[in-house]
Amino acid sequence: MLKLFIGNKNYSSWSMRPWVLLKQAGIPFEEVFVRFDSFNANSEFKKALAGVTPTAKVPVLQDGPLVVWDTLAIAEYVAEQYPDKQLWPADRAARARARSICAEMHSGFTALRGNCPMNIEARLADTGALIWRDKPAVRSDVQRLVEMWTSLLQEHGGPMLFGQFSIADAYFAPVCMRLQTYALPVPPMIADYITRVSTLPGVKAWIDQALAEKDFLDFEEPYRLKP
Amino acid sequence: MLKLFIGNKNYSSWSMRPWVLLKQAGIPFEEVFVRFDSFNANSEFKKALAGVTPTAKVPVLQDGPLVVWDTLAIAEYVAEQYPDKQLWPADRAARARARSICAEMHSGFTALRGNCPMNIEARLADTGALIWRDKPAVRSDVQRLVEMWTSLLQEHGGPMLFGQFSIADAYFAPVCMRLQTYALPVPPMIADYITRVSTLPGVKAWIDQALAEKDFLDFEEPYRLKP
Ligand SMILES: N[C@@H](CCC(=O)N[C@@H](CS)C(=O)NCC(=O)O)C(=O)O
Ligand SMILES: N[C@@H](CCC(=O)N[C@@H](CS)C(=O)NCC(=O)O)C(=O)O
Repeated sequence: MLKLFIGNKNYSSWSMRPWVLLKQAGIPFEEVFVRFDSFNANSEFKKALAGVTPTAKVPVLQDGPLVVWDTLAIAEYVAEQYPDKQLWPADRAARARARSICAEMHSGFTALRGNCPMNIEARLADTGALIWRDKPAVRSDVQRLVEMWTSLLQEHGGPMLFGQFSIADAYFAPVCMRLQTYALPVPPMIADYITRVSTLPGVKAWIDQALAEKDFLDFEEPYRLKP
Repeated sequence: MLKLFIGNKNYSSWSMRPWVLLKQAGIPFEEVFVRFDSFNANSEFKKALAGVTPTAKVPVLQDGPLVVWDTLAIAEYVAEQYPDKQLWPADRAARARARSICAEMHSGFTALRGNCPMNIEARLADTGALIWRDKPAVRSDVQRLVEMWTSLLQEHGGPMLFGQFSIADAYFAPVCMRLQTYALPVPPMIADYITRVSTLPGVKAWIDQALAEKDFLDFEEPYRLKP
């Protein structure tokens, strides 16, 4: 059975991607929760991952003796192992495009990621409004997302980016969470896509568990004091 | 025919990856050089890419009407189109590992990338020695590379990371260039791997053309004044 190591559901945007992918695709897996106590070398988090993965980060997928780390490599591995699930779009051109946007996400959108860390249970509309006012790079990141999603939803007719659910939607699910938490302004078509993503059973399961977590981590909270 | 848009060969580490991959694999392509005049919105660079790619970055691959951007997506696309070239390792476990290290590179090694930008024709051993002394994060990045490459070279017996040449070697070729330019200390086994990579015909062709370029770009030169 596949084994997926993940961090705190409220905060770990990278963990969310493969978890949602597996869940939504109905692929069975065992989940190993590695709490974010801290990312210091002698943290429990790092100790739990030592010997599992060379990067000491989550997510990590174990398939028997095989270890796959980093979200994109995990997505490719799962897509290869379950060809019948069509996790990448079946059409060659659509698949190339889906891989392009996932790779773009993988190393890009740094302003949005840096300024608006994922925090599913928080509602930070005022913080978001200030960020929106003061950070042009965040506005550019969101503009690029709106442009990307709009053209894909128009071309493929929705409900997901490439018609049916694919790795691309799992990859952008944490971005949907950020847009909601910080209430960043997006056109209605994009707001509707975010709602549809949030209500996918695989995504909803993650959100519900994130809300149930109630584990406030100071170092993941640049905008809130512990209640 | 495939068309690959690339930047300055001396500086553009991301462009180097797919170019070396195609060249070394013997896949014919047309090269479109887009000079780095600047990355401002109204630069010639951005103008040349407008309408070609939504991210306005290089590399970009065009295959007829199809546009693939971002190095990892380009690598996957080419691997799919040319299965006989075995650009990923044929073994499932090795392939998963190759994808893991490429994805790790794609979004990681930020200290090495930030402090030691690729500059093939420069020889900056003194700068490198100061960076090595003062930047623990660069030392950690290099330590991780040494560990990764050593275990792969031992397991697969060389000469390349997974035995024969694969996407992984193309992906780490710009890293080899950085280690050379800044003369960062590595064990002999790793130095030998760097030499082998540098003498692959596909890599050597890129290096030769980078040396012939002679286009000093101030904004890519944190450590040198124009001669
Ligand atoms: N590129 C990696 C990023 C993984 C990552 O940064 N994970 C975070 C948690 S969301 C982590 O484990 N951080 C620990 C650390 O930075 O030490 C991927 O896509 O999997
Ligand atoms: N993640 C992208 C990175 C591409 C990238 O950053 N390319 C640089 C040149 S090496 C670029 O075009 N920069 C222009 C800019 O940042 O505006 C990839 O893997 O292709």
